[in-house]
Amino acid sequence: MEKRIIRFNCDYSEGTHEKVMEKLMATNMEQTEGYGTDAYSRQAKGLIRQLCGREDADVHFLVGGTQTNLTVIAAALRPYQGVMAANTGHINVHETGAIEACGHKILALPSREGKITAAQVEDCYRAHMQDNDREHMVMPKMVYISQSTELGTVYSKKELEQLSEICRKNGLFLFMDGARLGYALAALDNTLTLEDLARLCDVFYIGGTKVGALFGEAVVITNPQLKEDFRYLIKQKGGMLAKGRLLGLQFLALLEDGLYMEISRYANWQMERIRGAFRRAQIPFLVESNTNQLFPILPDCILDAWKEKYSFSYQQRMDERHSAVRFCTSWATREEDVEQLMEDIEALDV
Amino acid sequence: MEKRIIRFNCDYSEGTHEKVMEKLMATNMEQTEGYGTDAYSRQAKGLIRQLCGREDADVHFLVGGTQTNLTVIAAALRPYQGVMAANTGHINVHETGAIEACGHKILALPSREGKITAAQVEDCYRAHMQDNDREHMVMPKMVYISQSTELGTVYSKKELEQLSEICRKNGLFLFMDGARLGYALAALDNTLTLEDLARLCDVFYIGGTKVGALFGEAVVITNPQLKEDFRYLIKQKGGMLAKGRLLGLQFLALLEDGLYMEISRYANWQMERIRGAFRRAQIPFLVESNTNQLFPILPDCILDAWKEKYSFSYQQRMDERHSAVRFCTSWATREEDVEQLMEDIEALDV
Amino acid sequence: MEKRIIRFNCDYSEGTHEKVMEKLMATNMEQTEGYGTDAYSRQAKGLIRQLCGREDADVHFLVGGTQTNLTVIAAALRPYQGVMAANTGHINVHETGAIEACGHKILALPSREGKITAAQVEDCYRAHMQDNDREHMVMPKMVYISQSTELGTVYSKKELEQLSEICRKNGLFLFMDGARLGYALAALDNTLTLEDLARLCDVFYIGGTKVGALFGEAVVITNPQLKEDFRYLIKQKGGMLAKGRLLGLQFLALLEDGLYMEISRYANWQMERIRGAFRRAQIPFLVESNTNQLFPILPDCILDAWKEKYSFSYQQRMDERHSAVRFCTSWATREEDVEQLMEDIEALDV
Amino acid sequence: MEKRIIRFNCDYSEGTHEKVMEKLMATNMEQTEGYGTDAYSRQAKGLIRQLCGREDADVHFLVGGTQTNLTVIAAALRPYQGVMAANTGHINVHETGAIEACGHKILALPSREGKITAAQVEDCYRAHMQDNDREHMVMPKMVYISQSTELGTVYSKKELEQLSEICRKNGLFLFMDGARLGYALAALDNTLTLEDLARLCDVFYIGGTKVGALFGEAVVITNPQLKEDFRYLIKQKGGMLAKGRLLGLQFLALLEDGLYMEISRYANWQMERIRGAFRRAQIPFLVESNTNQLFPILPDCILDAWKEKYSFSYQQRMDERHSAVRFCTSWATREEDVEQLMEDIEALDV
Repeated sequence: MEKRIIRFNCDYSEGTHEKVMEKLMATNMEQTEGYGTDAYSRQAKGLIRQLCGREDADVHFLVGGTQTNLTVIAAALRPYQGVMAANTGHINVHETGAIEACGHKILALPSREGKITAAQVEDCYRAHMQDNDREHMVMPKMVYISQSTELGTVYSKKELEQLSEICRKNGLFLFMDGARLGYALAALDNTLTLEDLARLCDVFYIGGTKVGALFGEAVVITNPQLKEDFRYLIKQKGGMLAKGRLLGLQFLALLEDGLYMEISRYANWQMERIRGAFRRAQIPFLVESNTNQLFPILPDCILDAWKEKYSFSYQQRMDERHSAVRFCTSWATREEDVEQLMEDIEALDV
Repeated sequence: MEKRIIRFNCDYSEGTHEKVMEKLMATNMEQTEGYGTDAYSRQAKGLIRQLCGREDADVHFLVGGTQTNLTVIAAALRPYQGVMAANTGHINVHETGAIEACGHKILALPSREGKITAAQVEDCYRAHMQDNDREHMVMPKMVYISQSTELGTVYSKKELEQLSEICRKNGLFLFMDGARLGYALAALDNTLTLEDLARLCDVFYIGGTKVGALFGEAVVITNPQLKEDFRYLIKQKGGMLAKGRLLGLQFLALLEDGLYMEISRYANWQMERIRGAFRRAQIPFLVESNTNQLFPILPDCILDAWKEKYSFSYQQRMDERHSAVRFCTSWATREEDVEQLMEDIEALDV
Repeated sequence: MEKRIIRFNCDYSEGTHEKVMEKLMATNMEQTEGYGTDAYSRQAKGLIRQLCGREDADVHFLVGGTQTNLTVIAAALRPYQGVMAANTGHINVHETGAIEACGHKILALPSREGKITAAQVEDCYRAHMQDNDREHMVMPKMVYISQSTELGTVYSKKELEQLSEICRKNGLFLFMDGARLGYALAALDNTLTLEDLARLCDVFYIGGTKVGALFGEAVVITNPQLKEDFRYLIKQKGGMLAKGRLLGLQFLALLEDGLYMEISRYANWQMERIRGAFRRAQIPFLVESNTNQLFPILPDCILDAWKEKYSFSYQQRMDERHSAVRFCTSWATREEDVEQLMEDIEALDV
Repeated sequence: MEKRIIRFNCDYSEGTHEKVMEKLMATNMEQTEGYGTDAYSRQAKGLIRQLCGREDADVHFLVGGTQTNLTVIAAALRPYQGVMAANTGHINVHETGAIEACGHKILALPSREGKITAAQVEDCYRAHMQDNDREHMVMPKMVYISQSTELGTVYSKKELEQLSEICRKNGLFLFMDGARLGYALAALDNTLTLEDLARLCDVFYIGGTKVGALFGEAVVITNPQLKEDFRYLIKQKGGMLAKGRLLGLQFLALLEDGLYMEISRYANWQMERIRGAFRRAQIPFLVESNTNQLFPILPDCILDAWKEKYSFSYQQRMDERHSAVRFCTSWATREEDVEQLMEDIEALDV
């Protein structure tokens, strides 16, 4: 019999949380309107507005992250405008040029632990806007950040306030990719709430695909300039799900009883245990993350051996004999798998 | 208590067939690779290749129809090339300019009952390619047809062979939108098989969203020129589902025991009953369709009265007092609802 | 010795009017700023504003017609918006899909003698905006017309006022392609002035390439919504000429002493003579044009014979033995060539 | 009287060389075909093929540099492919996102003196192509370099051979932006010939706008994969000049008697004199350039004083009190202006 590989390579290896599945089952034979205009989707949108403390917010459901990023950015920018992002940002490296395919340049800023700063944003903005002949350069108009970042780190409330302030001062839209928002909100030292995000960002999304749903991202738009005709963009970019209620139902299941935060805390906690094991084994990390992603730097010989037993993501080569890799946990991570990994970490003799 | 509206407005009002849901449930907690590289997706692709009699075909799963259309067309055409389509074609009227947003002109041809002919294709091709200065015009490079069409009609084997022949003669790709392919294959007078489609088209898809799945379209590419790097396009256009197995699993459930054809025949049969009732009541049709869509022309006063009880789609105004509307059936249509409608039709005094 | 072919095939066979060339010569060694910020360009823009009676208008110079059309339309529309045009419109048939390549659908309306009506515009607008699910269709946002049209006809003041009124009522931008504007303004029965155009259109251009310049089109924007950041679009689309003064200088030469109208009247007059000759020979026309383009319907045998002596454009087949062709005149048309042609027309025995 | 500002800010301040103007004058009233199909354009294309030693090359004339860059890149790449370039490259910083507006990501590489190396290209290529899931990233397919670079430096024959070898090994197109090609070919230590460029690049262009023409760039395509349907792209992107002969005539004037190289050498020589003066005054340079662009680093107080007398371009701030600026020479630079500047440099007391 083939031995089971234990997957820590990503946070979307399983289907969906049982409460989500139950809701899909329970409503399966009901007839509803299509394209997200059904009662469940309306109810889920209302719930999200309430959780964000913003009755004026527009909420839209999309299927996946790349789709959401390209739709939001295409809706926000005129053809000659660009979006600033960390050079490690998902839109800059892992979306096959989806943003450029919509016509927009990504102004990549050097990042520290996956994050960019308000000062960097202002410098980039000024460099592009100071000259008389500034029309020879792209006009920066949006800032894209991920929370948690692609390196598992989290913007603090202060950092986000500073970014928001610089953006408003310069007429820039602040867009937060929340594909892994749950893990950021559940991070131990996090003080940001959904209400804060709704206040500080112009648009952000609550990720479902990587936080327990089958699929789905809930976009929250608070800036009125970004609301107009957004559904046209969703449709044009191929993101309008015919059976739109599937999205509404999933977010209802995730958000109505605090399930979203509960499973995010669970995933963070399982990773905290793994993190502790690596620490005790004196394994260094590529970056000090505090969510459900961990980037240990390990000898290649150990990684080779572990491949038989575990699945994890390759991140980058560190030197001739060491590489950084990524481990992830999720709502579905099994305690026994975590404990198995911890045992193997403890057995390391680096 | 609010009275239930009986929905005949589209074929995607409910969730999914129970056998599909069962398969999703049964595999929910399994860990698999993402992005459609899992074993279930591979298995489903193999099954589709087998059903098409083409081991060399590439199969890809996407989420929805507009997404599939824009991805296939963007993958196939160079920037200055266009796609011919019926002026009633989905890409021409109901996709918010998604094809143009990818840079390509749709060369709309006048259609008869939703269909275009080989002769029209050849005329259009010649008109664009005869001049010395043809580079001032778009170069036609693809023909897009829908099976069944947006008006519920079906291309016959002969019509499709003629289209295919003209396309090959002129180096044009033939692309069949099969969002409602099941209903076409199940049409009483249909003689086309999946093997025929694989032979006659360069690329086509087997629609799931409108034929019993939660969502999903299975693209079958037989022309090697269209295969290269197709996954890049899927990813860039936002169509690569993280939990890709959801697509593979659904198509397995639909295709492994003939369920797809069974539910298509069921939907066609229920519509045949409704069609008979309208015929007996001497209600004319906008078009002679023979699948799960029907377009009766009814007095506005009756339509107004029926709105309290039924949901149907408005198609077009015929004269001051009559309109054409659309009724649809699906795998989920209830016999009792059909019979209720038939009763009301019989009661008509037009 | 090879016999000279007399060219009536277009209005851009020669270089430029001598007064234009003189101005280029006289200023050739002066040093100026680039990209249209020089004193000559500023002076020409001021002159155009004055001729239009609109000190508030923005004026920009571009090199050619397709470039101008795509730049104006890309600047005006959001990604899901489309532009209505006559099906015979230049953007719809002779720009290799340049507008679609910028992402926008052209909503082609059936045209009569190259023109569309206010009623057609309103019908199209309503058809796209009435439904609840209108986001499944392109949103019409602009109307494109050509003056004179591609068939040499001219919108009357009343027709333009009606179009303008419908556009303003429905929030549509009215854009006039003036590649051959001079010939329209110089048409015998024309009562429209540049001031009228500036009042009735949101944006239009004064064509130079086809009216005596080496190249160049002067865009006049009166609607403030269309002014913002227009130079960014010019640069991005490759239309910002480094030695921008070449455009300013040419329009100064053409406009400062009425030369533009003078040469337009000359071309129209030479065509009027040719038109008279065809009339006297009882040759029918494809369309009743009254500017510098004429579309006689002639026997193919005569056209074949004439090809040795004249160059003209093929327009379309009328029946098995007759075709419509196009003759053009311009500022550079020689009277002796016109007279030669008139003689040959008179000699026809149809 | 206003004092004349002496312009060293760019190489396109004047009109055109007198021999170019003479040829335009001499042919002004001739009738020719349009769109570059005339005899002069054909003759100029033949001459360029001959100078490149490549009878099989396709030659096309375009109006300006940004237009040429976007047309070549749009013609070469499929939608998900990107182009590598120096981060200082013109397409990356000074074209308002023109390449991204065509849908393509620029993969910016850190540059040294405006240049990139074969090793950088290979590293970038490998980083994007090694993974199993490489379809999540843009596929690198082209390398863009400028000769001379935006910093006035020149790729040596050896450097270009290495780049060419790496590109061919990995199936990458090598594209050279030759907006300032004359100055590179005329550089004292240059050993590259047009024949070398035709052999080592897949496509490059001979710049006219910045080397003595009114406007115009001559694209030379030697790779057959890049030739197909190129005129469609030119037309679609708005680059097909109606009076195309203007381009052919200018390149004939520049190339038929060696004028192109003569004026390039003249410009380089005048800059060499200025360079010597700065050296003697012990003014440092931002970069060691050897063509017609020079980047001295000067105290801000001196730059302020000089602004009354000279025009030059601001490049970048070096420290609180010093900035790098750019001086250019051209075919039209007057010796007396150079000597005036040299005097002022000698008078510096830094």
